[in-house]
Amino acid sequence: MASKNRQILLAKRPKGLPDESTYHFVETDIPSINDNEVLVQAQYLSVDPYMRGKMSDAKSYTAPFELDQPLQGGVVGTVIKSNHPKFNQGDTVTGLLDWADYTAVDGKLIRKIDPNQAPITTALYVNGMPGLTAYFGLLDIGQPKAGETVVVSGAAGAVGMIVGQIAKIKGCRVVGIAGSEEKNAYLMNELGFDAAINYKTTENIRQALKEACPNGVDVYFDNVGGEISDAVFSLLNFHARVALCGQIAHYNDTKVEMGPRFLATFLKRSVLLKGFIVTNYADRYEEGICDLATWLREGKIKYKENIVEGLENAPDAFLGLFRGDNLGKQLVKIQ
Amino acid sequence: MASKNRQILLAKRPKGLPDESTYHFVETDIPSINDNEVLVQAQYLSVDPYMRGKMSDAKSYTAPFELDQPLQGGVVGTVIKSNHPKFNQGDTVTGLLDWADYTAVDGKLIRKIDPNQAPITTALYVNGMPGLTAYFGLLDIGQPKAGETVVVSGAAGAVGMIVGQIAKIKGCRVVGIAGSEEKNAYLMNELGFDAAINYKTTENIRQALKEACPNGVDVYFDNVGGEISDAVFSLLNFHARVALCGQIAHYNDTKVEMGPRFLATFLKRSVLLKGFIVTNYADRYEEGICDLATWLREGKIKYKENIVEGLENAPDAFLGLFRGDNLGKQLVKIQ
Repeated sequence: MASKNRQILLAKRPKGLPDESTYHFVETDIPSINDNEVLVQAQYLSVDPYMRGKMSDAKSYTAPFELDQPLQGGVVGTVIKSNHPKFNQGDTVTGLLDWADYTAVDGKLIRKIDPNQAPITTALYVNGMPGLTAYFGLLDIGQPKAGETVVVSGAAGAVGMIVGQIAKIKGCRVVGIAGSEEKNAYLMNELGFDAAINYKTTENIRQALKEACPNGVDVYFDNVGGEISDAVFSLLNFHARVALCGQIAHYNDTKVEMGPRFLATFLKRSVLLKGFIVTNYADRYEEGICDLATWLREGKIKYKENIVEGLENAPDAFLGLFRGDNLGKQLVKIQ
Repeated sequence: MASKNRQILLAKRPKGLPDESTYHFVETDIPSINDNEVLVQAQYLSVDPYMRGKMSDAKSYTAPFELDQPLQGGVVGTVIKSNHPKFNQGDTVTGLLDWADYTAVDGKLIRKIDPNQAPITTALYVNGMPGLTAYFGLLDIGQPKAGETVVVSGAAGAVGMIVGQIAKIKGCRVVGIAGSEEKNAYLMNELGFDAAINYKTTENIRQALKEACPNGVDVYFDNVGGEISDAVFSLLNFHARVALCGQIAHYNDTKVEMGPRFLATFLKRSVLLKGFIVTNYADRYEEGICDLATWLREGKIKYKENIVEGLENAPDAFLGLFRGDNLGKQLVKIQ
């Protein structure tokens, strides 16, 4: 055990994309723990697009990060000391913990994971928040039926890849939209997507989508927003469902962008649109994790991780989400 | 019984607002009826905003009106001749019939109404399609709970006035948006709305709404779209519901208007938005009509009609819907 604790604090709320001035790197003592607390040493840290929202102080579904406090994210780590009856030294646990080497946390805010059941990083992906996000957004809001067409934007992102695979399990035609030929080849050849569109090189996305979706679009799982979504909206069928999971095109906007008004189309076609955050489904996590773990074991869901080494690289790994670097789940290995 | 049948045909699909060239007035013989058909003489004709959509041939929830055929709308009339076992001469009936003095119609497409239960025009309003539209849009999509704030745009229109009154029955704070002081006085003094905003004279609608909705907006019943809806969207609460019933601001658009993108807000606040048309609820009409008729009898729902005389004035009465002339339900008395 090292004698110091590196932490990354929120130094300033970013306008637009975060940069160096957003973060403050400090070294502190390793925290002591109170009654019912556990000291966790981080092994892997998850960076996810939703964190950009928490860096701002706008009204949102979760409280913003506090200034001069450590940023937090999904972590898998090892229990170093425990004052909580449910945890012992050496346990592998997961929870929302600091961007740091060590976090002291109330035992009720973390859960134990079994390293023999699945690789521990899956607790940050398929068997964790991104998997559950895909699961509930697609199945509860999207309600896909066999034979229907499901379009997913940000398809090569952590959530998008799971969405497409669950839609295939449900017997749908699945069309992904992503930002490189490499990503699209992976979606089609490895994950079984029926078609994939490269939004960076396709001149007329609407036309490409029309060809990829000869029967229109029944379910749209939206991770990105902006012009890509405009194109999908124009192809929605009667009674189509839109699961609004992310709007990564807009997270770094410094003013409200203008776009074509589409509600007359939603009206004419009786479209349902629902914004959601995975915690809306907190009382159903068990159901989701059970299905996801089963599909993972059966090989019906494959996954890909992109692991960067070193806590100091977390800010750049996070920025990579907005540059579109990531094929699959972006993780940071702390030690 | 007259010897001729006046009809109004769709002469040309309008671009923008309908005008004289949209219509063709003809006189034909009174139609003969086949087996199972009924000849109905129209007494009252309902003009409704949704008809604008059917004048175009864009993909929509209902088939468009056919060129050189009579326009159709909700009619209450009298059975003149019947070849259908369920109808006798003299019965009062309602259904989607021609803009004409007479229509020959299959008996299964009309229903009998009892003139002793309620004024017959209520079959075109509170106890008919507009009432059911308000009922299902508000209750099924909006899911208003006592103490919540409901905002309705187009509040002095036929549907809007019913929406506000049902929301009051459910114990909500109700805020209407309409286009004149006279309308707003009626909404507040006669129908019990808690507040009403005149969008034509209010400089900052968002600010006015903020004052009228100190706890934010939980349910928005949208009849209009455009900038009024932009203002409401900015005040939606977490888990707010938007029932998308009309977009009258856009029915006569000849190109797609631009507006501020709002989906990032919908995402952050887990908002539900659903476009609908009353026929989505066809299998639940009985439930709706039962509740509406009860509330009407109990005086919990009041209504106002605006009746124009003469079939020849139907086109102008229809245009009045877009000019904002109407306080309450616009009807045309045929004879």
